[in-house]
Parts: sequence; C-alpha cells; structure tokens
Amino acid sequence: MSKKVLVLPGDGIGPEIVEQAVRVLDAVNAKFNLDIEHEHALVGGSAYDETGSPLPEVTLTKAKAADAILLGAVGGPKWDGLDMSVRPEKGLLGLRSNLELFANLRPAILYPQLADASSLKPEIVAGLDILIVRELTGGIYFGQPRGIRTLENGEREGFNTYVYSESEIRRIARSAFEAARQRGKRVCSIDKSNVLEVTVLWKEVMEEVAKEYPDVELSHMLVDNAAMQLVRAPKQFDVMVTGNMFGDILSDAAAMLTGSIGMLPSASLNAEGRGMYEPCHGSAPDIAGKGIANPLATILSVAMMLRYSLDAKDAADAIEAAVSTVLDQGLRTADIASKGSETVSTSQMGDAVLAAL
Amino acid sequence: MSKKVLVLPGDGIGPEIVEQAVRVLDAVNAKFNLDIEHEHALVGGSAYDETGSPLPEVTLTKAKAADAILLGAVGGPKWDGLDMSVRPEKGLLGLRSNLELFANLRPAILYPQLADASSLKPEIVAGLDILIVRELTGGIYFGQPRGIRTLENGEREGFNTYVYSESEIRRIARSAFEAARQRGKRVCSIDKSNVLEVTVLWKEVMEEVAKEYPDVELSHMLVDNAAMQLVRAPKQFDVMVTGNMFGDILSDAAAMLTGSIGMLPSASLNAEGRGMYEPCHGSAPDIAGKGIANPLATILSVAMMLRYSLDAKDAADAIEAAVSTVLDQGLRTADIASKGSETVSTSQMGDAVLAAL
Ligand SMILES: CC(C)[C@H](C(=O)O)[C@@H](O)C(=O)O
Ligand SMILES: CC(C)[C@H](C(=O)O)[C@@H](O)C(=O)O
Repeated sequence: MSKKVLVLPGDGIGPEIVEQAVRVLDAVNAKFNLDIEHEHALVGGSAYDETGSPLPEVTLTKAKAADAILLGAVGGPKWDGLDMSVRPEKGLLGLRSNLELFANLRPAILYPQLADASSLKPEIVAGLDILIVRELTGGIYFGQPRGIRTLENGEREGFNTYVYSESEIRRIARSAFEAARQRGKRVCSIDKSNVLEVTVLWKEVMEEVAKEYPDVELSHMLVDNAAMQLVRAPKQFDVMVTGNMFGDILSDAAAMLTGSIGMLPSASLNAEGRGMYEPCHGSAPDIAGKGIANPLATILSVAMMLRYSLDAKDAADAIEAAVSTVLDQGLRTADIASKGSETVSTSQMGDAVLAAL
Repeated sequence: MSKKVLVLPGDGIGPEIVEQAVRVLDAVNAKFNLDIEHEHALVGGSAYDETGSPLPEVTLTKAKAADAILLGAVGGPKWDGLDMSVRPEKGLLGLRSNLELFANLRPAILYPQLADASSLKPEIVAGLDILIVRELTGGIYFGQPRGIRTLENGEREGFNTYVYSESEIRRIARSAFEAARQRGKRVCSIDKSNVLEVTVLWKEVMEEVAKEYPDVELSHMLVDNAAMQLVRAPKQFDVMVTGNMFGDILSDAAAMLTGSIGMLPSASLNAEGRGMYEPCHGSAPDIAGKGIANPLATILSVAMMLRYSLDAKDAADAIEAAVSTVLDQGLRTADIASKGSETVSTSQMGDAVLAAL
C-alpha cells in the first residue's frame, strides 16, 4: 500500500525550502521504489489568508490520515496583530495537539564542514552532538485557565497555567530514555524544582521511569544552570529532556551553538511513531521570497521522516550522504557561508543535493 | 545618621566570599568616613539548620530596617530533599517579595582583562556590555494557585500560575527605560506573545510605557529567539527587560557568555531604591569551604550597593578601580584563570583588593 505524506509549506521561507525538500523526496521515491504519495495543504498565516483559519478542517483531516507530515514554517509580522486564536502559530499548535505529537526531537549537531560557523570557540563545540527531547503537547503552552482578565481594581492581569500530569511526564521520559539508549546512554532532565511545584513532580516521575532503564544514566539540572552550561560546555550533554517552554528556549540556544541552525531538522512524534517533520528554524520573513534560504534543514527533515515514520532507512541514509557531499563540495547558502565567501541560492542547493543523490 | 547594612552570608561559598566583601566594605567605610554599620543574620539552608526556617523572623525584621542588604548565596544538595516551603531558596524568595525588590539588575560585562575566559569567539563578545532587567517579585515564581494535586483518575498533576498585572509590568518597564536612559538608550523586551496571553499584556504595557520615554527605543523579541541571539550576536543588545522566569534563564546565559560569571554583581531594588546586592553566581556547593571561590562578584556587589543605596559614589568607584587593578596585576581565582596558569585563593584575592584600594 502506498504511504501518504502531507506537505504543509506554511509561511515566509516555508514554500521555498519545502519545494526543494519535495524534489528530494520525489527523487528518492523513484530511486528506492518507495511508493510514497504526497499532497499539499494550507497551514498558518497563508491558510488564514485563504480560509480565515490557520488550521482549516480539511488540513487537519488530511493530517490525521497521513503517514507523515512535512512542514516548512509558520508565522510572520503580517499576522502579528491578529487575535491569538487565529494566529499562524495556532495552526502549528493545533496540529501538535490534535495529532498528539508529544515527543519533539531536536538534535544539535556541529557539522565538521561548518565548524567555523559557530560563535563558540572550536574547542568548546567541535564534535557537538546533543539531542533535546522536548515535551510538545502540554505544559504552559496548553494549560488552562489562561487569558487576560480585569481585576476588581480595574487593572488588567494576564495569566497562563503551567501544568503536567504524571502520565504526560512519563511518556516523554520514556521517549528520552529510548533515544538515549540509541546514543550515549545519558539523560539530563531539566527542571526548576527549587521554585516550581510542577517541576518537582516532573523530577520525581523522571526518577521513577529511570528505574525501567538501568542501562541509562539520569541526572538533573536546573534550567538556569542548563542555559549556562550550554554556553560553557555543551559537550557534557547527551540527551536533554524537558517541558514545552524550557525546551523551546534551550533547543533554540543549543541549535544556535552549532552556528548552523539552517541545517537542523526536527521530528515531532506521537505514541505510534507517526510524526511531523520540520526544520528547527523559523519562517524567516525577512528573507522570504528572495531565494536565499537554506533548504538543508528541511531536506534533512525528509530524511528523518523516511527513517522514523516511513520505514525507508536506505533512502534516509542516501539523503544524509548527499547533504554531506554538497557540504564537502563547499556549497553554502548565505546563513552558513563564511564572511565574504561565495554563496548559492535555495534552488541551487536543491539541485546540488539531487545531483549528489 | 549611620547607615545600616545587613549581611547575609547564606550557604555554600556564601560565607567565604562575603567575608572578603565585608573586609572591603570596612576599608572604604574607614577611608571615606561613610558611617556604615553592619550586622550579620542567617538566611537559607544555614538558617533552616539553626532555626527550622530559611527566613527567620528576626532576619526579616532586620532586613526591613536596613538601608541595604549584602547577600552571598543560598542552597545546596544538603537541603534538596526538604519540602519546598522550607528550602533555602524560600529564604531568598521571601526576602525578595517581602521587601518588594521587584527590579533585578544583572549586568553582563566582558572584562577586557578576561577576554580569553569566554567560550565565545573574541569577535562575538569583545566589549560586551548588556544589562538584563528582570522582574523579581511576580510571574510564575509567585503566582497562585500552585501545587501538586490528585486528579479524579488517581494520577497526580503539578501546576503553577504565570501571572502579571498591568501595574507590575509598568513598574519594571520604567526601571528598564530609566536604566537605558543612562546607557545605550535601547530596551529590548522579551516575551512569548505568540503563545502566552500573559506576555501579550506584557508587550502591550511595554509599548504604553515607551511613550513616556521618547528618547529610548523599544523593540520586542520572542524568548526563544532571544536565547539564540544571545549566543549568535549578544552585542546587539543594550538593556533587555523580561519577566521573572525568562529573566532567570536569560540572565544566567548572558552572564556565562562573558566567561566570568564569578565577576558579575547584581542589584535587586524596590520602589524607594533600597536594595539587596548579591553576586550573579550561586552557592557552588562543590567548591564550598575550599577557599578557592572568586570573591570579586560579591566585592563588586558592595560597590553597586554603595552607589545605588548608600549614596557613596566615590567609595564605589574606588572599589571598582581596585578590582580592575588586581585583574591588571594578573591575579586570578581558578574560575577565571586560563588553563594551567597560576591561581590565588579567595582570601588572597581579598588581600589584593584591599591593598589596591
Ligand atoms: C512558532 C512557535 C509557536 C513555536 C513554539 O514556540 O513551539 C516555535 O518557536 C517552535 O519552537 O517550534
Ligand atoms: C536560587 C533561585 C531561587 C534563584 C532564582 O531562580 O531566582 C536563582 O537562580 C537566581 O537567579 O537568583
């Protein structure tokens, strides 16, 4: 039976980078006889513009029926003034929660070919390879109650709720321990248990789940210290696991350490391993439409998709090898080029990966 | 009339570093005829051990009566198992909220003498001088309701509340704009307004207060992007203003960028300018009692205290000049020494600053 991929280009540079990634998907589909079908749908600001909703019903229905989703990025200043309930981000958050994509895997890897691109000194980041496992469907992102209300004294107050149940913590803990088993066998759980009760429970459940994984070592770190340690000595980490909000902040910091956030894919998985794949970077509205965005994170997201959701390891390996080849050839989009050196366009980078396949 | 300083050594390396800072305070007190009196009191884990409370009534009473407070640091693994209501951190949080020390000023400065200590490349951090203004008595640190409860299905759930009122936001906004006026005249407000309602209000009030300061430029940045930008190009910032939790994370990351977190003081001020002064670093229990901790952040906190709360600018200048002199002389505690080079002890560093005064 054919496998279905739903393609959601989204906003900003989304369409440009997804176009190149789909070309790569088509190429491996033919080459490896994968029998993958794909169709496009709208999400985010572009969906709002067309339909009045950032997550149209038809998109959600198709997403639920798909074996995997490839997403570009959503959002941009154009929609900043909108009410929060119809903003582009709501499309992304709606997909995550409706499909229960609770396990967000964000690798932060330093590509040896791009060692110069990092702001950190080479000895601090050479060989960096950490994985951030971020809980994606709970925490303060989705907690109730939330809103802005008027107090008795007439002034307004904004409020959100940071909440996790034991079962939510348990399943993301297991995702982290499983991932660590395939890697360095160390999990560092990030909390703020000296201040926030919700993270006291988090820490406790982590300890409990650790007992199921005697071969994996668990440690704990406070989130403020984690932010410092990522700058000071990021190689001390193997797998970091944390909640939705802390994961948002720390994974972006970690990705930026590598100097190549334009290179980093991510996977958001549900309990059955179905998933949504997207670059770690955002919609970069400032460079949208210029044809200069780096499509490699999205192309590598296709590789992750093939490996984790479409049972096509060989095709995934082939894409990753092709990306490595183009880097060896010295091809660089602007974001990963050294100052003053030559750059290629989004589509030229796509061409090069196709040629290397 | 004499000015009263309450000295709270706290836990871990707190007593060692505060000892040196008090020697420096005594020296400038004599030299500049400041008529400052000081007394010591207990806070944190050491207070809990002695009295059963991390913030004994007598400490709080003395704190309220003091013109300024000098704090070392609190916390350590010894007290990690305690109930949150009596943990050392509760002593610190209790002081902050009871004295309404809502404006936490955390500079992140690269000392030219220590340029090598940063993990970042010299061109990224040379000359770094940013100020993080963190709201310190509200947000999720103090929001109600909070706790761990049992759900109907029998599982437990942890919850905290992230809340800010307009007036809380307004006063910290003014602190940030006032500070920016003395510096680069730029404020960047950090929020997560694409997801959290409370930060939508935050952003709105920042805009409103900005109108009172036409000479200061206001910009906004999402917290995940801010964490990235601190790593990528920290010199783009002048003053960053943010809530309690984001400020905790970002200020630690920013301090670590300089490679000299052992050098950075902080001030926590109330509406009348009375304040508590403490190093940005923590209680470092791993090196406590070894006499190797860096006392300079605490000594520089004394300088901040003299300047902001005790109206003794000359004495503050003298301390800062003395610290600069000892750095020029090449004196380094272990945390700021280059690998393999000679180091001095906590008290030797104190001696050197006294000699340079
Ligand atoms: C666009 C935004 C809602 C999203 C998030 O905060 O989760 C993004 O920052 C991310 O990390 O995927
Ligand atoms: C000790 C802890 C409660 C405190 C905080 O989280 O505010 C510390 O990390 C700080 O930044 O001063």
